[in-house]
Amino acid sequence: MMNQISVFNTPAISDLPEDIRELILTVQEKSGFVPNVFLALARRPDEFRAFMAYHDALMERDSGLTKAEREMIVVATSSLNQCQYCVVAHGAILRIRAKNPMIADQIVANYRKADITERQRAMFAVKVAQSANEVDESDFDRLYAQGFSDEDIWDITSITGLFGFSNRMANVMSLRPNDEFYGLGR
Amino acid sequence: MMNQISVFNTPAISDLPEDIRELILTVQEKSGFVPNVFLALARRPDEFRAFMAYHDALMERDSGLTKAEREMIVVATSSLNQCQYCVVAHGAILRIRAKNPMIADQIVANYRKADITERQRAMFAVKVAQSANEVDESDFDRLYAQGFSDEDIWDITSITGLFGFSNRMANVMSLRPNDEFYGLGR
Amino acid sequence: MMNQISVFNTPAISDLPEDIRELILTVQEKSGFVPNVFLALARRPDEFRAFMAYHDALMERDSGLTKAEREMIVVATSSLNQCQYCVVAHGAILRIRAKNPMIADQIVANYRKADITERQRAMFAVKVAQSANEVDESDFDRLYAQGFSDEDIWDITSITGLFGFSNRMANVMSLRPNDEFYGLGR
Amino acid sequence: MMNQISVFNTPAISDLPEDIRELILTVQEKSGFVPNVFLALARRPDEFRAFMAYHDALMERDSGLTKAEREMIVVATSSLNQCQYCVVAHGAILRIRAKNPMIADQIVANYRKADITERQRAMFAVKVAQSANEVDESDFDRLYAQGFSDEDIWDITSITGLFGFSNRMANVMSLRPNDEFYGLGR
Amino acid sequence: MMNQISVFNTPAISDLPEDIRELILTVQEKSGFVPNVFLALARRPDEFRAFMAYHDALMERDSGLTKAEREMIVVATSSLNQCQYCVVAHGAILRIRAKNPMIADQIVANYRKADITERQRAMFAVKVAQSANEVDESDFDRLYAQGFSDEDIWDITSITGLFGFSNRMANVMSLRPNDEFYGLGR
Amino acid sequence: MMNQISVFNTPAISDLPEDIRELILTVQEKSGFVPNVFLALARRPDEFRAFMAYHDALMERDSGLTKAEREMIVVATSSLNQCQYCVVAHGAILRIRAKNPMIADQIVANYRKADITERQRAMFAVKVAQSANEVDESDFDRLYAQGFSDEDIWDITSITGLFGFSNRMANVMSLRPNDEFYGLGR
Repeated sequence: MMNQISVFNTPAISDLPEDIRELILTVQEKSGFVPNVFLALARRPDEFRAFMAYHDALMERDSGLTKAEREMIVVATSSLNQCQYCVVAHGAILRIRAKNPMIADQIVANYRKADITERQRAMFAVKVAQSANEVDESDFDRLYAQGFSDEDIWDITSITGLFGFSNRMANVMSLRPNDEFYGLGR
Repeated sequence: MMNQISVFNTPAISDLPEDIRELILTVQEKSGFVPNVFLALARRPDEFRAFMAYHDALMERDSGLTKAEREMIVVATSSLNQCQYCVVAHGAILRIRAKNPMIADQIVANYRKADITERQRAMFAVKVAQSANEVDESDFDRLYAQGFSDEDIWDITSITGLFGFSNRMANVMSLRPNDEFYGLGR
Repeated sequence: MMNQISVFNTPAISDLPEDIRELILTVQEKSGFVPNVFLALARRPDEFRAFMAYHDALMERDSGLTKAEREMIVVATSSLNQCQYCVVAHGAILRIRAKNPMIADQIVANYRKADITERQRAMFAVKVAQSANEVDESDFDRLYAQGFSDEDIWDITSITGLFGFSNRMANVMSLRPNDEFYGLGR
Repeated sequence: MMNQISVFNTPAISDLPEDIRELILTVQEKSGFVPNVFLALARRPDEFRAFMAYHDALMERDSGLTKAEREMIVVATSSLNQCQYCVVAHGAILRIRAKNPMIADQIVANYRKADITERQRAMFAVKVAQSANEVDESDFDRLYAQGFSDEDIWDITSITGLFGFSNRMANVMSLRPNDEFYGLGR
Repeated sequence: MMNQISVFNTPAISDLPEDIRELILTVQEKSGFVPNVFLALARRPDEFRAFMAYHDALMERDSGLTKAEREMIVVATSSLNQCQYCVVAHGAILRIRAKNPMIADQIVANYRKADITERQRAMFAVKVAQSANEVDESDFDRLYAQGFSDEDIWDITSITGLFGFSNRMANVMSLRPNDEFYGLGR
Repeated sequence: MMNQISVFNTPAISDLPEDIRELILTVQEKSGFVPNVFLALARRPDEFRAFMAYHDALMERDSGLTKAEREMIVVATSSLNQCQYCVVAHGAILRIRAKNPMIADQIVANYRKADITERQRAMFAVKVAQSANEVDESDFDRLYAQGFSDEDIWDITSITGLFGFSNRMANVMSLRPNDEFYGLGR
């Protein structure tokens, strides 16, 4: 059971729809392995496609936030939600994006003490993840004061929200991080 | 400000990409009004498309859960997350789907006392929303005992997760429910 | 069981002491039905009388708070305490008092986003209900700044406290809201 | 300020309505002092009368719970709600009722470790005070198994609820315990 | 079982290592009884010695905090952690150190309403005990503003931490307070 | 400020008392660097000695728990308390003790999903750290059922408690993990 990818059944790559199989093979070629989240989500092709589309729309677009900053949000949110897969996998991506072998472990443990800027610490992922119901104008003002625009606030909120969603999925499915992630970018 | 749809700017329908404009006009024709969430999300066309694709993949598909049951999950999750838009809008949809004018208000106030079946009460949306990190085999066993399959558990988890995401978006944008929703299905 | 008023036994109106029977019949005449809370509490006549006396002393007296504002406090408190009876019944009363079909549902979902004034949002019912132990001078100052007097603060506190009490009673007895309440004032 | 009874103004005994003045003088004669709660509540005579009526209906009636057990509920609830007046004043009353100089301090610190019976530990005041919204049949079954009747459960709930209410009042008014209470019953 | 000192076995004084036996006999001579914590911890001599060394290094040293203030921190922390032994035993020591029969009961119930100075209320034991992970420069500034030095902040933190540790030990071992403590200093 | 060891001043090694200086130089020789906690605590020599004595009494003694298991408790507790220093430093020690490069990151993210045995998952560090006040016989029974003895339960409790203490110290002092720890044991 320990080495099982997910508590749900996982399709063979060869059984997947053409577009999903191609996407997965491209990722495998680029990364050297297939991150387990692809296999775990592929059992529902339409949802797989929607997740990937949403992910790319937020994480690959031009933004006032750097790609490393977007991964900081993912790692902070995933740590808060205790999602093992997301912490380990996106911790690796953050180390690579930020070219910093320590930053992910620091944010996972306590983002308040991490080697990040005051502006980065002000991204309110923790508030969105824990108490979005209490967000009001004063939060916007604090973010504006750090130079964030409305588009940046939208990005922070959306990334926190999308990964809060995948954190819940990964926890329920007991999604296992690939062994490869642990050492990447160190 | 009170009648503003969202704290973020909202595009004119006429400025939207063709596919999104058509979708919105179709909804308007069918419902008699344009639910504000469509206008609020349309400012980011790619994310709009991904959200709608994900929504439909979960809410319109054949499933072991009825459409009313899926709306119960949305309403319970949105109430927990204190999302005004989602509680009001999906409360209306639930009343219509369940052909029951009281069910939404009951679930919003305290789902434990609502006129739902034991099986429906066992859908673990509240646990997924609040502590997915603690989900384990015993939760699956409780759901299996009520006749839920792995596919049903996947649906419950995904619906709770997707709406937990849109609850956070709607709260940060202060998304205003259309006045039309309050009286629908009563 | 679904249509049972309370998990505790409920006396027949004809068996009640004269004064309580008369009160209930008057309410019935005025409202067109007997709200279930009257029947559920009447099994303990002395406590019934004390509750009604306390209720009227707070809710019917002249006050710096309008009757609608007092019902806002009841609805916000009852939503926080997840009391189905109180949310549904006092939601109806609030709609009528405020002549506003949307206000109750808005406050139930998230009072921070409701169509109420800044002054009304400042009534600190949520703090009294959740952390009265932390109330200090700074809370009084915030209320004074909105024009509330000491008498108003006493009213807010007492109403929050009394309904926090009846919320707990109603939850333990699984007090069922009358079907009539759901549509009133819409 | 330290020796002030309450942050709200307090009437002189001589200015009080006849019935309230008499009640207070009787208490003074019996106890040797006037507990501050009487003076603090007397500023609103109707509410004072309702509170006293409710209090006596619950605390002085014949019940399946001894008077000491009812005070245990008050002390446990008041400690949970961090109400200084109620902890100190009802701690004294409990010591006297139970003829036990240690019992109140034990319950205040951690009722789970107090010298009380398994049955007394099963009174679910903490659950009523903290999460009455989650009370269900299984709680009733646990209480029935300890020999509690429906009337006893009503009493436990009502006492917890009434004192949860007065805890909130006392905390907002910063009601000061009389010095006399600290040493009583030791 | 009620009069058992601890759920773990407790060594006879005569079986203890010389230095520990002597220490305990000295305490007994001075206090008139052996506080149960000494017997309960002595079963692990090395840990006993380390605990006493740490305790004395913090509680007996010259400090910007008076001995009474240090006991206030112990009592506030122990009340928060619901440690019966520590609340009862250190409540007694605080009464003696402060020469005040009421102060301990006040702090146990709600330190915010206790007869202590603004400076004493600012000692941030509750924050260290509950959310040390959120401590930042603004906390230091609040403490500096009350005249506390870095050494004082170190003392507050260490005392809160050490007693948070012994609170957990005492709760797991169900350490029983000696009857003698209840009346001391009253 | 980023590279500062602690917000408190840190003594030069050459200024330390002989015994402490020797201990630190021994550690440096063995590890190749001086872990920052030694320098940060050495400013108070008596407390330093007490901490080290307590640490060694628990972590170096013969025990029913392996050294790796004791480090698991430290890492789980420190993650819960969001102590960056302890998570990073003891994560490294755990990797080395367990000869497993992934185990620490897994426990930090969500110990429920880590590659540990059922018995290891049953060590109740999280309960001791979060709600020791609720520990009772049923917890002991669960631990006995996994083969843990009273001595093992004592060890689990003490290690959780001691590191809960040092977690609070490290968070208040913003103790910075040495860069060397991040890569050790991977």
